[in-house]
Amino acid sequence: MSQTAYRTHHATEVTEDLVGERVTLAGWVDRRRDHGGVAFIDLRDNSGLVQVVINDEEMARPLRSEYVIEVEGTVRLRPEGNENDHLATGKVEVVADRIDVLAKSDALPFQVSTALENESENKLPGEDVRLKYRYLDLRRPAMQRNIKLRSDMMRAARTELDKLGFTEVETPTMIKSTPEGARDFVVPARLVPGSWYALPQSPQLLKQLLMVAGVERYYQFARCYRDEDFRADRQPEFTQLDMEMAFVDQEDVMAMAEQVIAAIWKADGYDIKLPIDRITWQDAMDKYGSDKPDLRFGNELVELTDYFKDTPFRVFQAPYVGAVLFKGGASTPRRQFDAWQDWAKQRGAKGLAYVVFAEDGELKGPVAKNLSEAERAGLKEAVGAEDGDAVFFAAGPRESSQLLLGAVRVELAERAGLLKPDEFAFTWVVDFPLFKRTDDPDDDDVAVGHSKWTSMHHPFTMPSKDWIDTFDQDPEHAMSDSYDIVCNGNEMGGGSVRIHRDDIQDRVLNVLGITPEEANDKFGFLLEAFKYGAPPHAGIALGWDRTVALLAGADSIRDVIAFPKAGGGRDPLTGAPAPISDEQRAETGVDYDPEEDD
Amino acid sequence: MSQTAYRTHHATEVTEDLVGERVTLAGWVDRRRDHGGVAFIDLRDNSGLVQVVINDEEMARPLRSEYVIEVEGTVRLRPEGNENDHLATGKVEVVADRIDVLAKSDALPFQVSTALENESENKLPGEDVRLKYRYLDLRRPAMQRNIKLRSDMMRAARTELDKLGFTEVETPTMIKSTPEGARDFVVPARLVPGSWYALPQSPQLLKQLLMVAGVERYYQFARCYRDEDFRADRQPEFTQLDMEMAFVDQEDVMAMAEQVIAAIWKADGYDIKLPIDRITWQDAMDKYGSDKPDLRFGNELVELTDYFKDTPFRVFQAPYVGAVLFKGGASTPRRQFDAWQDWAKQRGAKGLAYVVFAEDGELKGPVAKNLSEAERAGLKEAVGAEDGDAVFFAAGPRESSQLLLGAVRVELAERAGLLKPDEFAFTWVVDFPLFKRTDDPDDDDVAVGHSKWTSMHHPFTMPSKDWIDTFDQDPEHAMSDSYDIVCNGNEMGGGSVRIHRDDIQDRVLNVLGITPEEANDKFGFLLEAFKYGAPPHAGIALGWDRTVALLAGADSIRDVIAFPKAGGGRDPLTGAPAPISDEQRAETGVDYDPEEDD
Repeated sequence: MSQTAYRTHHATEVTEDLVGERVTLAGWVDRRRDHGGVAFIDLRDNSGLVQVVINDEEMARPLRSEYVIEVEGTVRLRPEGNENDHLATGKVEVVADRIDVLAKSDALPFQVSTALENESENKLPGEDVRLKYRYLDLRRPAMQRNIKLRSDMMRAARTELDKLGFTEVETPTMIKSTPEGARDFVVPARLVPGSWYALPQSPQLLKQLLMVAGVERYYQFARCYRDEDFRADRQPEFTQLDMEMAFVDQEDVMAMAEQVIAAIWKADGYDIKLPIDRITWQDAMDKYGSDKPDLRFGNELVELTDYFKDTPFRVFQAPYVGAVLFKGGASTPRRQFDAWQDWAKQRGAKGLAYVVFAEDGELKGPVAKNLSEAERAGLKEAVGAEDGDAVFFAAGPRESSQLLLGAVRVELAERAGLLKPDEFAFTWVVDFPLFKRTDDPDDDDVAVGHSKWTSMHHPFTMPSKDWIDTFDQDPEHAMSDSYDIVCNGNEMGGGSVRIHRDDIQDRVLNVLGITPEEANDKFGFLLEAFKYGAPPHAGIALGWDRTVALLAGADSIRDVIAFPKAGGGRDPLTGAPAPISDEQRAETGVDYDPEEDD
Repeated sequence: MSQTAYRTHHATEVTEDLVGERVTLAGWVDRRRDHGGVAFIDLRDNSGLVQVVINDEEMARPLRSEYVIEVEGTVRLRPEGNENDHLATGKVEVVADRIDVLAKSDALPFQVSTALENESENKLPGEDVRLKYRYLDLRRPAMQRNIKLRSDMMRAARTELDKLGFTEVETPTMIKSTPEGARDFVVPARLVPGSWYALPQSPQLLKQLLMVAGVERYYQFARCYRDEDFRADRQPEFTQLDMEMAFVDQEDVMAMAEQVIAAIWKADGYDIKLPIDRITWQDAMDKYGSDKPDLRFGNELVELTDYFKDTPFRVFQAPYVGAVLFKGGASTPRRQFDAWQDWAKQRGAKGLAYVVFAEDGELKGPVAKNLSEAERAGLKEAVGAEDGDAVFFAAGPRESSQLLLGAVRVELAERAGLLKPDEFAFTWVVDFPLFKRTDDPDDDDVAVGHSKWTSMHHPFTMPSKDWIDTFDQDPEHAMSDSYDIVCNGNEMGGGSVRIHRDDIQDRVLNVLGITPEEANDKFGFLLEAFKYGAPPHAGIALGWDRTVALLAGADSIRDVIAFPKAGGGRDPLTGAPAPISDEQRAETGVDYDPEEDD
């Protein structure tokens, strides 16, 4: 497999077994050291490193970092004492008798050498520089690992899906705009001037059509597109592992997805205990202040609404009061508590109330003096604190207060170093509401209809069995058959049972305030398809960039994407997006005027 | 794997082993027959058919074609004499005691029943109707097979590429416009008003960057886009199996590709003999009048330029005269020969000269009388004909004449029924010219530069070793290190050794008439990357839709794509492309006027 026109072996195949044999290698000059007239080259290829010894000064002279060379030579054991235990090839070296320079390298904008990887001198430049020279950034071993891991994970997922009887189907990416809550990227259609394709936000409707088509088990690593304002960890195009099954219910899909997730993690050596635990959406909010709770640590929120039901403290006279424990927080300096206030305000809260249980048993902090005697006396027990701890409070509307406490909980864990990237705490979140209010300030999706209700997931989500007959009478409390898979506080994916009957679909659209005309215009083809024998079906999709980043322990999804975009959708490498020529513009048909041309 | 909330077994799992057992099945009513108060339903699912017997008229009454039902019942042997040998489940049937209608179906626009598949009553409607109801069209067993085969082929290719050490890498699809000879689809960039992304015609430059990045062996099933005028067997978006390797030469890539192709064909039970034969581009043109010769049959062109060098016949006083034998063609009626003239004129030729070797030994046909006595006498031997044959001639410029004869050759074979879809004749075509003339009338690509030369493949193709120093002095004769893989007269794919040195790349661009400024503007990032140690690299891509269509024996690539576009890029199913709202248009930024906004 290694043997090509340029090499007999990869670097890491050069082991003691080959001592005395001639080999030809090809790769990059990772590092060069000179010692007593002898040059030592770390030759790097896709597999790793091997040391090359060059006794001939003439031969060694031209070689610089990142030159591409072909080396012919003889393998020998390194002199005693010179072995490198950190290297797979550390017992041997190749004594070169021919070196061809296949390509030279200018001085590098930043160092990529393996040897420097964990040393402080290997200070990476800013991300724009890394992206501009992405082909160099990707040479770094950490990035090589990420790219390789992503490929391995895809293989593992596919192998498992194959075992489970899935068919891989590619769906088109130049489609009709569909209503999924974000802005579409659009493509002018030259052959139909004035008309546009949309790039898919997901293959949602197409995969549902595949179920109507009798494919029964479909999957695809699907490219998806959302034209959203730039946020740190979003990309305008992204990949999802998209799956859909016919003749199944929620349990079937969850069991299938667990098999796939376990196979993916197994590809990197991790065993995930199945079945994965479940938590209801309501419990997740109550206990962790999040619909994607990080369960690598405990420290559940404590609800104190009842506890403070007769409080004299105006702030706590609220529909919800809750707290989160700051273990050992009593010794925190005042200015750090002030910083917490700023942190909370940046998140849109008014502030962050707290009390301190001093080591001497005294209750301190700005809130303490506002509480009644009885409230002060019982508080430590009510929140499960001990002397030396502190407690943060939130009071106000239930959901936003819980979300604030949930964020505090994660921030505390982060600062305490509890968030280990190589520990994985999975959970299913289930029993979601079917709808949510369109005026929810914490929500970044665009409502698809004109009512005060929008879909919690999307308009094609099936109401749960108990609510089939009544969801439109009580949209606030109606529940859906949907499920999110959460890992370490990230929503890795989610799915639902889909509506497969046009009567139910019509009623859901009615709640969303989508008129039959709009529905027909936007996805009439799906409603039409449901008239010809649509099987019950359900599915799930994993956000693949996030899933890879989680397993890779990468801070950003950009570290697991070969060529990601920078802020604003720019590509510092190629300069995209860019102006187009007048001729090109004319051809797109965007300036087509039907009156003029008719 | 079959067991879900709706079924215990798939249809074809119901065999004699289950006689006496209770099963629950789910699927579509493929066909219903009634006989003596008993209803017989062919229940169809993804696996196939099984017969369901319903003794209860009440239970049977509502069931119609394509209803989705869940059936619970007991498996029994069919009564003796009622077995169906054509069916895997033909020895058994399921006696139903519960049937739930999961979804109804309106009357169908066309029949999809398995039973009708090969019967004349199953007349398929026009393609626009099939595409409008694609979810029904895909239920037909022939289409189910195609979709499944495509998935199986992808798995086979991936498994082989994995063995060969390849890494799957996804490359972006919102990129900078690159020069590959066709029109780009473009996407307005809202966040950079007035700027546009292009959808990739191929990941060519990105995969070359991955080589510079040290990935060494890359593959991807890549979505590609070309905004071309509609032609019968083109799609605006299509898939290619894209592969690239570093530190390899042409032989390495061809050997790798052969392994992959053999594995793909093996997935459908075919053994391909390796290595695959090779033919030079010149030989392919000379012998078969095509750069993608169909080698399922012989009947090579015969060059007669020398033979007619002193001819009195003006038409044959040409730089090239050639012929192709029409075996047994002497008995062809005159009006059919006239139809051949029309056929040739439709292809842009002036006509199609021919002679007939009558059974009585006489030389007939319009051309015969124009030839000299000697020419007439020796002709039969010169073209290898026998009495009873006919011969078609072409005379004129070498290449266009050969292409005409090549088309005649294939048309003759087609009419003679020699083109068997389940026979596969592979060949490599090698030794291509590096450049071709921009004024070639048979070429549909757009020249990328401003000279009379354009690339035969693309501007990143390496000149062959013999021509490295001189290709720019003699562009007409310069050869390249490139190769096409051809099957049954179709170009299944092609590739080349790439230029990895910026000096050679500069010289090629110069021949193409691309100025350094243009080069820098369009793909300066690639030239820049070559400055930092680019390894020698080469690759290949298979047109995946065509490859699947070949193995599936499908007439059109549209039969192996789940949701293809119709003519003009229209999608009869969803109505794409479609107008967008004024608000959406405003958001795209296409009407951005820098002077107005500054």
